[in-house]
This record gives sequence, structure tokens and C-alpha cells, in this order.
Amino acid sequence: MATASSSFSACTLGRAMPSPKAVNGSIDSMCCYPNLFSIQSSLKSISLSADITLPRGLSNDEEIRKFSRRERIQCGALDVETMPSFLKGNKFQFDDVIEAQQFERDTLSAIFEVAREMEKIEKKSPGSQILKGYLMATLFYEPSTRTRLSFESAMKRLGGEVLTTENAREFSSAAKGETLEDTIRTVEGYSDIIVMRHFESGAARRAAATASIPVINAGDGPGQHPTQALLDVYTIEREIGKLDGIKVGLVGDLANGRTVRSLAYLLSKYQNVKLYFVSPEVVKMKDDIKDYLTSKGVEWEESADLMEVASKCDVVYQTRIQKERFGGKTELYEEARGKYIVDHDVLGAMQKHAVIMHPLPRLDEITVDVDADPRAAYFRQAKNGLYIRMAVLKLLLVGW
Amino acid sequence: MATASSSFSACTLGRAMPSPKAVNGSIDSMCCYPNLFSIQSSLKSISLSADITLPRGLSNDEEIRKFSRRERIQCGALDVETMPSFLKGNKFQFDDVIEAQQFERDTLSAIFEVAREMEKIEKKSPGSQILKGYLMATLFYEPSTRTRLSFESAMKRLGGEVLTTENAREFSSAAKGETLEDTIRTVEGYSDIIVMRHFESGAARRAAATASIPVINAGDGPGQHPTQALLDVYTIEREIGKLDGIKVGLVGDLANGRTVRSLAYLLSKYQNVKLYFVSPEVVKMKDDIKDYLTSKGVEWEESADLMEVASKCDVVYQTRIQKERFGGKTELYEEARGKYIVDHDVLGAMQKHAVIMHPLPRLDEITVDVDADPRAAYFRQAKNGLYIRMAVLKLLLVGW
Amino acid sequence: MATASSSFSACTLGRAMPSPKAVNGSIDSMCCYPNLFSIQSSLKSISLSADITLPRGLSNDEEIRKFSRRERIQCGALDVETMPSFLKGNKFQFDDVIEAQQFERDTLSAIFEVAREMEKIEKKSPGSQILKGYLMATLFYEPSTRTRLSFESAMKRLGGEVLTTENAREFSSAAKGETLEDTIRTVEGYSDIIVMRHFESGAARRAAATASIPVINAGDGPGQHPTQALLDVYTIEREIGKLDGIKVGLVGDLANGRTVRSLAYLLSKYQNVKLYFVSPEVVKMKDDIKDYLTSKGVEWEESADLMEVASKCDVVYQTRIQKERFGGKTELYEEARGKYIVDHDVLGAMQKHAVIMHPLPRLDEITVDVDADPRAAYFRQAKNGLYIRMAVLKLLLVGW
Repeated sequence: MATASSSFSACTLGRAMPSPKAVNGSIDSMCCYPNLFSIQSSLKSISLSADITLPRGLSNDEEIRKFSRRERIQCGALDVETMPSFLKGNKFQFDDVIEAQQFERDTLSAIFEVAREMEKIEKKSPGSQILKGYLMATLFYEPSTRTRLSFESAMKRLGGEVLTTENAREFSSAAKGETLEDTIRTVEGYSDIIVMRHFESGAARRAAATASIPVINAGDGPGQHPTQALLDVYTIEREIGKLDGIKVGLVGDLANGRTVRSLAYLLSKYQNVKLYFVSPEVVKMKDDIKDYLTSKGVEWEESADLMEVASKCDVVYQTRIQKERFGGKTELYEEARGKYIVDHDVLGAMQKHAVIMHPLPRLDEITVDVDADPRAAYFRQAKNGLYIRMAVLKLLLVGW
Repeated sequence: MATASSSFSACTLGRAMPSPKAVNGSIDSMCCYPNLFSIQSSLKSISLSADITLPRGLSNDEEIRKFSRRERIQCGALDVETMPSFLKGNKFQFDDVIEAQQFERDTLSAIFEVAREMEKIEKKSPGSQILKGYLMATLFYEPSTRTRLSFESAMKRLGGEVLTTENAREFSSAAKGETLEDTIRTVEGYSDIIVMRHFESGAARRAAATASIPVINAGDGPGQHPTQALLDVYTIEREIGKLDGIKVGLVGDLANGRTVRSLAYLLSKYQNVKLYFVSPEVVKMKDDIKDYLTSKGVEWEESADLMEVASKCDVVYQTRIQKERFGGKTELYEEARGKYIVDHDVLGAMQKHAVIMHPLPRLDEITVDVDADPRAAYFRQAKNGLYIRMAVLKLLLVGW
Repeated sequence: MATASSSFSACTLGRAMPSPKAVNGSIDSMCCYPNLFSIQSSLKSISLSADITLPRGLSNDEEIRKFSRRERIQCGALDVETMPSFLKGNKFQFDDVIEAQQFERDTLSAIFEVAREMEKIEKKSPGSQILKGYLMATLFYEPSTRTRLSFESAMKRLGGEVLTTENAREFSSAAKGETLEDTIRTVEGYSDIIVMRHFESGAARRAAATASIPVINAGDGPGQHPTQALLDVYTIEREIGKLDGIKVGLVGDLANGRTVRSLAYLLSKYQNVKLYFVSPEVVKMKDDIKDYLTSKGVEWEESADLMEVASKCDVVYQTRIQKERFGGKTELYEEARGKYIVDHDVLGAMQKHAVIMHPLPRLDEITVDVDADPRAAYFRQAKNGLYIRMAVLKLLLVGW
């Protein structure tokens, strides 16, 4: 639906949870995420129609503001709680996890605390029973073994059970031809939570609008992959010890990677963050993010000198140049690919406390000899994905 | 093996359970289903050879009767129990669930009672442990994600565990070339019950004849899909409150759908049922079923007026016109497909207490605007599949 | 890596466990298997480089001896335990199960005792909780439904949980291009033990060298499939009651079957064993095994007379002629395939206590009429695979 270049939405989803910021009218907390459990309510259908027109790019601020204001009025009836509550036993503020933009700073912080608890639980044997009796359906319309295993491990580490399909496309294949909505209505009858991977941007939102059980977006095409965004921020906090005042170098394919775009967005919620963009010309960070960062007062600069950036940063976040984005232009791809490699020399330039991150899989944009250095944080980062997913599953199913 | 047009067998399978009707010599309870646990017994091998000649169509009643009589003699030794027993703790009357025709009215009623218990169990968290320690193998020779997830959910809701393969064809692929019987002998060593989906009519029966553990037929090609038949009847009883005296309109592809054929068969066990057949000329209900209904004293009529039928019926059972049955004749398919659509107008003609059912997936033979009406029962019907499968698993593994 | 014809390694892997034989300098216990848990230790990296040069064929004994001696020195520091300990509660002697050659006679015997316990556990309902809280990842780079289900059943019968992928190739597919080592580092974060099937000889060893959790080789191309080797020896002991002094006829494809090669190797550890090789000319047993058997004092002979061999043997081990090894030469294949069939006549020649084994799947190299004879042990053999895998999982995860 949305194209790769405009897959970024500034609208925070947050049902019944206007944070203090929302009162000030900032764009990132203006719309609310309807309680998907109350399918019958007319309120839901109204806000859903708004969802459809929700701008995924940031090119037209005026329209966003207009949308937000209109949405605000519609959501008025839901504004019962005026402060989020992260107290143990309370319900989670969201019915679904669809976009990185759902989360405010205080929510992120509370989620990260739960993730830390999860680290402790995972270490213990024979494992937790927190989600005993709960059934998760992994509804994958395209294979993503890494993401699937991570979610399924998270569920099982908490004592939950899993129904798996990587073959969900069969539901909507030519012969059968079922709509996503019908599939969701069927699968929600078999499970307590749906983790969905889809090839189409916006599919997770449609699923959540239909389902009466929680939906987690495990990547919808060029759109969103919110648990990846959460685990990235969580890893920085775990590795560096703080999020305010950090310097982060984003390296590689900054145009197509939803990872770095979401990360830049989420980091803008912290104080005195400085971002460096280091990328080949053809895959530079797009203006929507740059403008947004500027509007939020986040300092950023572009650089062609990876060594210099590495020497200044707390985090060097390397990414893979995605060959599939270059069509047949192999030459262009090869040139881009070889330009910024994190190797032993880059490591040498880095500070002692700094770390290297990567969303994985990597090809050769980080050389293998870097792996043994304690500053190579990417496998720890992958592991953090487990804790974040455990936390999100726990929160959606049993609350804080 | 059998072709699509003759996939209907009139022979009820029922080991050691001659219902009162059987005594009267009616065709639907004449053959008995051998105790598959006693593989060594010569009795088994005799009745198996009979199974192979079991007529799948109803075209030759004489032969059926001959077969039945012969079978009756062979089964004599097993006629120890003369009345079925549905008392809690008793063994289930069947070792396998292979065909809709296994079930008599009283057995259906007892199974539905168990399904109701299952509804209560499914609602409770953290879930039942009735099947704890049991292992189900879903042995799928072709993908059917909906059916597979439904069975796996059923097993897990009861505390059981699952081994999954949608890739069972690999066992018998060119390079490996194993017979179904060898595969079953291997898989039965790993599990306590086998749920099998196969592309060939009769495959489930062959599997059951080999296995020393229960086999459930989850669809064998154009043949049988007995849990679908059970859930359809169960849904009618749940929605309408009774099965005697109901009026049911069967709409759409009545020639190829095993669903409507099995449903018509099972409804013939109830009193004063009236069936209406509404279908495009090319996919009309076949004579074998019509003759069978007539022989059982069930009233039926064909109609081209969906609105009129809808106004009279308790249940409008819509089905998908199966494109794959039309070969290349797209025009014929398109014509058939558009002919009888259940839409808002049909809904308007229907009585207040009536319901619309559909085996799913649907294309556009029921319009989406119908979904919101409480009379749209098809997603509840899909959910009932879960309860029926829970019941069947429970019955086969631990009894009444 | 290694070719099919040289996939046999004489080097026993055994960390910190020099058996008495090792002291005598025999080639099968000279190298030691490094503790894969201590990834950081320099000792590990040294012995890994040795692993890479580990000869997989037996053509160059001199080199093996050289390697072994060098390795012996490096392993010296680990020689703390001088006697293996099979006492309940003790740690298993191995961190991984990669090759049949890891196991000495006393270890085999102790593993078989655990497998017997597993038989008892499997019979009980609702099943054991020995591995409750443990998570096994089945990482399959090619489908092998039989092996996968066997391992997954084993894990679940012991109360453990499973993460499944038959689609592991996706990790390393063109677009993603991840190394095996990176994949392992990711998957080890999600699970407690990895069962890996790969198309490349040596892949399991590479995985084990990377992983900080146990790895079980479930077949790596033409290389090894150690649990198959274990279950074969276990079956002989269970069926015949002893391993010393037995006569075994290996029939069929002796050139390509890793099964018969491993079996011959393991049987050389027992006293007074006699082997008969019965195979078509094109797929004869290779010289490396023959030379090895001779060097260990094992009697063997080749024969073209299956009937005569059958009359002398305790075990007739039939194998499938692998069509895929013949390229396009169908005629040659058909000739080889039809040459030695185990049928009712062969059965007639066999002694009363003797058994027929087969690794399955079979085509027609054993006729179906043999199945009913109690001497047909191949389905019991398949079932023994479950017990052996339960034992190996238990040993690697919780020890003796």
C-alpha cells in the first residue's frame, strides 16, 4: 500500500492514554488507538476510517495537524485515564503493537523494565509459567525464520504455547482467495494473540482493526517492525547505560532500512541526542526523518568519514545494503556495499565504552574479526529481541 | 481412488455398536468398523478386504445390501455390546474418525454434549490438562492451514502436544518413495494420535487400517472430512436449538462440495427435515444423495429462487463455487459464481431466528455487509470446529 | 566440503575422556573434543584449527597419527578425569553429538542403558518432565520429516519444548546471505540445544564449534548421522541380546550409505564380530572401511549369495539402492536395485532368532509380505530411534 519511501508515520497510537505531551499538541501523540475489543462501537468505525487516511510520510505537516485535531475530538470520549499507569497488575495501555510510534518515553522505559525482568526469568530453569494456558498464533505471510523463532521462543520461555504457520499465504492464494479480515476472524478463534508477518505495508493495522485479540506486527513489508525498534533502543540503554545525551552513528542503507528510520524516530524522544548519518549517496537518509528530527530539536549531521564518526559515537549502528533495492544495477550496489565497512580499523578508532550494533543478518559490512571484541554488541542485540518480545507478549496478555 | 462424483459412502462405520436401527437392516449401519488395535486378528484382515470393496457411491443399492449382509455376518463376533454407552469414563465407540457415516443420531447427540463441555473448558484459563502427556501428529500431505491450526489449537487447549508436518509428501516423494502404510508405521511410533490430510480419497481409511493408534481424517481429497460434517450439524443445533423439524437451504456448488453432501446425509437422521437445493445448473446436487434422502423419507426440493427459499428456511447454507472444478471454462464458472449471492436483500427476506452458514473460505458469495448481522453464523461455525475437534480428540484418547 | 567417498573419519571425539585404549595410542581415541562452552579459551581455537585438518578418510594413516599426536599434546591440559564416569547425576562426557566415532564401547553401553529407561518413560502417561523448561531448536537446512519428528517426539516425551524450522536455508539464502556461524549465534540465543540437519558434510562440526549450547548432528549431507548409528547398534543389542560374537550381513548400497559405514565402524569395537558384505558391483563397500576393519582384527568377507549369508547371520541389514547416486544411468540403477531383495525366501533361510533391519524408507528391497514376520525388526528399529534420541537429549541437557 504505502511505498517504501513513505512508510513512516508520525502518529503515535495510544488508546485512552493522552500523555502530558499530548496536551501540548505535539504531533506524536495526537491520535488515539481505539480499543479494538469493542468492535461493535460506532466510535471504533469512525476512528478506523481516520486510520485509513493516516499519513505515513511527514511531507504534509498541515494535514497531520488537521487529522490529529479531528481525531482528538473523536477520541475525547475515551480520555478517561489521564495518566498512564505502569503499576503491576494494571492493564497494558495498548491492545496491539503495530508501530514504533505508539510508544512514548515513559512507556518505553516501563517496557524496558519488564524486559529486564524477562532476562532474569529466561536464565531460570525450568522456566516461567506466566503465560501458561495462552496460545500464540504466528501467522506469517512470508518466511522470516529469525523473527518467528524469536517470538516463539519468547512465548515458550513464558510457558505459553504456539500455533505456527509460515504458509499463511495459502489462506489468500488464488484458489482460496480469502480476505485478510476473514483469515483473522478465523485465526482469532483458535488463539489468544496473533503475531503477524506480512508483505504489505498496513496489513498489521488492518488485522488489528478486525481482531478481537491482540495483534503484534512482526514486520509488514516496507512498513513497520516495532519490536525491532524496541529492541534497538533497549540494547542501547543496556549497553551504554543511558539514552539521554548519546551520540549514535547510523551507517549503511539509511534510505530503505525501516530499522534505522524507526530508531531515529524513537531516539528523538530523548534529550541531547546527536545522530550521524554515514551512507553511500544512493541510499541517504530521507528528508522526512531529517525534517522531523529538526522539528524535535535533535541535532544531526551527515558525514562521509566513518572513522571520525566512529571515534565520537557511543553507538555505531551498521546496516546491510539491501541488494534487492538496486534492481539490476549490480555495479551501483557493489559500489555502495563496499563503501563503509566496520572492520578492525574502525574498532580501533572507537571509544572503549562504545558498541557496534547491527539488526542482522550481516554480510560483510562488519568483518568477522570484529566479532571477538566485547564492543561487538550485535549478537547480544539479537538476544535482547527475545527479552523485548517476552515483555510485549506478557504486557498484551496479562498486563503490567 | 474414487472420483469426486462418487465420494459418498452410505455405510456407517461402527465397531461393536449396532444401534437399534441396525437390527432393522437399514443400509447405514450394516457394516462394522473393525477394532484397529487388534492388528493381528484374522477378523480384521477379513473385514479390511471388505472395506476395499466398500461402495463409495449410492448408485447400486443392491450391491450395498449384499455387502452389508456379508459384512454383518463377519461382524457378528464383535456384537457384544448391544447398546452404545455414553457414560463418562467409558471407551469411545470408535477407534478412528474416518467418515461422517460412522455416526448415528444418538452418538452425534453425545458428541455434541462433549463439545459443549469443551466450550466451557476453552473459555477458562490456564486451560485444561485433560490430554496432558498426549502427542498428536498432524500428518498433512497437502497444506490446509485452517484445518491444521484448528486441530492443533484443539489439542493444545486440552493440554496436549503436537508434532507438525505439512510436508508429509516428502515421505512418499520420488526419491524416497515410501508407501503410506510404512509412513504410518513410522509416525505411530512417535505419537498417540494421527490427524491426516491427504489428496487421495480413501487414504485415511488405509491409514486407519494400518495404525495401532487412532487416526482422524482431516480431509482426504474429494472423499471425506468428517469433523467438518460434525461441526456443521453442531452449529445448526447451537444456533437453531433443534435438529428435528428444521428447514435447510443448501446453496451454491452442491455437486462438488463434500460439505453439503455430508450435511444432507447426516440431517437425514433427524425427523421432519426439509432440504432446499439452490444451485446453478452445472453444479446441481447429484442423484445419489437425492435418492438416498427419498429412501429415508426426507423431503427435498430444488429451487431457483434464493429469496423465496431464504424466507422459509431456518438455515441458509451457502458454499463457494469451486473454480478448480471448471477446468479452463472460465465463462461457465463466472456465470455460476454470480448466480446466487447472499447479500443484504437475502438477509432481509430471512426470518429473525434463521442463520447463514458457510464452510469458509468465502469469496464474494456472501457480501461483506452481511457479516455484522447477528444471523451471520459462519465465524461462529468456524469456532465450533474447534470445540468439535476438542471433543473428538478427547473421545478417541480418553473416552467419554 | 568432504566428498561422499571420504566422509568417514576415524577420529573419536571425546573431551577430557581418554579411555584406557587412548593410552595405547589407537587411532580412534587420539583426538579430543574441546569443551565448546569455553569459547574464549585459546585452547579451543587451537584445537579447532586442528579440527579443520581432521582427515575424513582413512587413506593416509600416517597423517592421522601425526594429527593425533599433535592433538594429544594440546589436549593434555584437559586430561583431568582419566576415567569416564557414567554415574547418575554426572555430566555427560560430550558437549555435542557430531559423529558416531565419538563413542567408545563403554559409553555406548551406558547410553543404551539410558535408552532402556527411556522406553519405560515413553510408555507412561502423562509423560516425563525431565526436560521441562528446556527448548530444542530443530534447525533443518533440508527437509527430513522422519528424523525431525523423531527428535521432536523425543523432546516432547521428556516434557521439553521445540522450536521448528525446516526452512533454515532461508537464513543463508541469496538475499540474506548469512553464514552458518552467524545463524548459530542467533539461534543459540533462543534455545537450549540445537538439532541440525544440513546438506553439507562438516556443517554440524562447524555449528558445534560456534555454539555455546549443545549441537546434535541430525545428518550433514554425505557426512554423519550419529543418532542413526547409535540406534542401529542399540537395535541389534535389543533384538539379539548381545553385540560380541555376532554375525551381520550388510546388504545393498554399501558405497553410499553412511548408515552401513558407521555401523561397520561401531561394530569393530566388539569382540569376534563377523561382517558379510552383499552388494551389487557398482555400490560395493569401500576400501577405507575394509582396511579399518582389518586393522582392528574384525573378520569380513564379500559375498554374492544373499541366501547363504542370510542363513549364517544374526542380522541381515538391508539398505535402499540410492537412485540419486546413479545420475542418469537408469539401467545401471535398475539392475543394482533388483539384485538383492529380502523376501519370503530369504526369510525362510534365516535362523529363528535372527532379524532383518533397514534404516527406512524402503522401496521394494524388502517385500511387504516379510513385514508380518516377527523377525522383521525395521519398524521396531525406527521406534528405537525415539529412545536413543530421548537418551541423547537427556544426556546433553541434564547428564547421566
